[in-house]
Amino acid sequence: MKNIGFIGLGVMGASMAGHLLKAGYSLHVYNRTRVKAEKLIEQGASWEEDVPSLASKCDSIITMVGFPRDVEEIYLGQRGLIENARTGTYLIDMTTSSPELAARIYVASKKRGLKALDAPVSGGDKGAREGTLSVMVGGDPEDFDEVRPLFEVMGKNIVYQGEAGSGQHTKMANQIAIASNMIGVCEAISYAIKAGLDPDKVLASIAQGAAGSWSLSNLAPRMIAGNFDPGFYVKHFIKDMKIALESADRMGLDTPGLEMALSMYKKLALHGHDNEGTQALFRLYSAQKD
Amino acid sequence: MKNIGFIGLGVMGASMAGHLLKAGYSLHVYNRTRVKAEKLIEQGASWEEDVPSLASKCDSIITMVGFPRDVEEIYLGQRGLIENARTGTYLIDMTTSSPELAARIYVASKKRGLKALDAPVSGGDKGAREGTLSVMVGGDPEDFDEVRPLFEVMGKNIVYQGEAGSGQHTKMANQIAIASNMIGVCEAISYAIKAGLDPDKVLASIAQGAAGSWSLSNLAPRMIAGNFDPGFYVKHFIKDMKIALESADRMGLDTPGLEMALSMYKKLALHGHDNEGTQALFRLYSAQKD
Repeated sequence: MKNIGFIGLGVMGASMAGHLLKAGYSLHVYNRTRVKAEKLIEQGASWEEDVPSLASKCDSIITMVGFPRDVEEIYLGQRGLIENARTGTYLIDMTTSSPELAARIYVASKKRGLKALDAPVSGGDKGAREGTLSVMVGGDPEDFDEVRPLFEVMGKNIVYQGEAGSGQHTKMANQIAIASNMIGVCEAISYAIKAGLDPDKVLASIAQGAAGSWSLSNLAPRMIAGNFDPGFYVKHFIKDMKIALESADRMGLDTPGLEMALSMYKKLALHGHDNEGTQALFRLYSAQKD
Repeated sequence: MKNIGFIGLGVMGASMAGHLLKAGYSLHVYNRTRVKAEKLIEQGASWEEDVPSLASKCDSIITMVGFPRDVEEIYLGQRGLIENARTGTYLIDMTTSSPELAARIYVASKKRGLKALDAPVSGGDKGAREGTLSVMVGGDPEDFDEVRPLFEVMGKNIVYQGEAGSGQHTKMANQIAIASNMIGVCEAISYAIKAGLDPDKVLASIAQGAAGSWSLSNLAPRMIAGNFDPGFYVKHFIKDMKIALESADRMGLDTPGLEMALSMYKKLALHGHDNEGTQALFRLYSAQKD
């Protein structure tokens, strides 16, 4: 396993591909806009003109793109990976995407003698940059064992979760936990401010106890400072919550907290804040009239 | 400040009073049911027959009782602390109670030459037992400085939050953050189970990242194990959320996440689970039909 393909060189993908290059793998890259590949090409990556030509040269191919529709096209399209990869190739989708699509890709791959894994990550651009991502993997366990060294180059907390789609399901559980908690964090900080307290002092009292969370420690201070820069984009969080809600609906599970969070984030996006960080949810509270 | 009164010897209060006794203070105790005082009496505490006789002997009096109505009676009733305490006494309510009531007690105390502080805690019975409570204090800053040594005997993270009521407001912010997060934790775990994942493995993937929280790390494993023992009682959490919601309403702040959590916990209580721990919210999800 020496020739690795990497498709999707956004902020996350570029960092992850960079780690593979540094680890000594021969890296073939493709991205919709070539300019994002320039730095990796300088460092030794080979540019491929399209998905089929990349597929023709690689033993393992990683994808890290935007939306499920992009994943679907790259895998299942006429000029896609499943049609064009060499027999025995590992196809690893690290995009946060639909569990149901991951299962379909697995089945289609199997038919063509390809080995598909879904392996979404958490940890954000910082985790990608520092190689400390959490990687949640679904697919056949022997395939996971085989490509695990690639994950170890990009991440720290690598867990095999089960059959195809299980990586995506795990990521959905992650996003579901975040969704309602963001509401709680916004309401706690809004309440503190409205009550005339110093919200930083309130954090000093509550952030280390039973109310504590990653979001409270990391995002509440940005809310208080009025800093709504991404971080994790509102538009991407909306995408993830939609997938999670569809998936929960399909399983017959009611998730009222997730529904509430999604509708609040949609409202936030309607107000033009979809390119801000998820902490911008606080705007819906601070905009309430006195 | 040598004679300390302590009213309310439940699980929390008994532990807190015990620390004061060990620290060498002369402790006078009163509780509705005397039996809960026996152990402290054996260790050297003086039993007082009622609130007035306790009040007549103490320089600082701490209360740790159940509900705002109990606080109101003990402070503002005919046979209460404000009527019966000696001029200059520090009155410290560590019950989680209403910020508005704390402000009323402060004003009534001031008129009688008494010094009232609201100082609710977080950290639960474990924090009380180990003397590691977080103490959130409202009232006059010079009074806080004076009684701070008492807090240091009972807690670790002691923060002065501002004028009377600010301690309670801070505790409300704490409970508000927990409320919505409990929904997120339940939905994440329910989703994982419904998707056929091993929820313990899912926790291994998500508990240390952006979805991480005290509740996810500490309560989700109990949900998974079907262990609904308290911990923090559903009935007490409902009390706290009611106070928080009333207080938010009074300030004109919409808190839809808090409202949803309160209505879900009320439903849980209606089903007879009010004496379980707050992680029992998970029952509402696991009871959903396939």
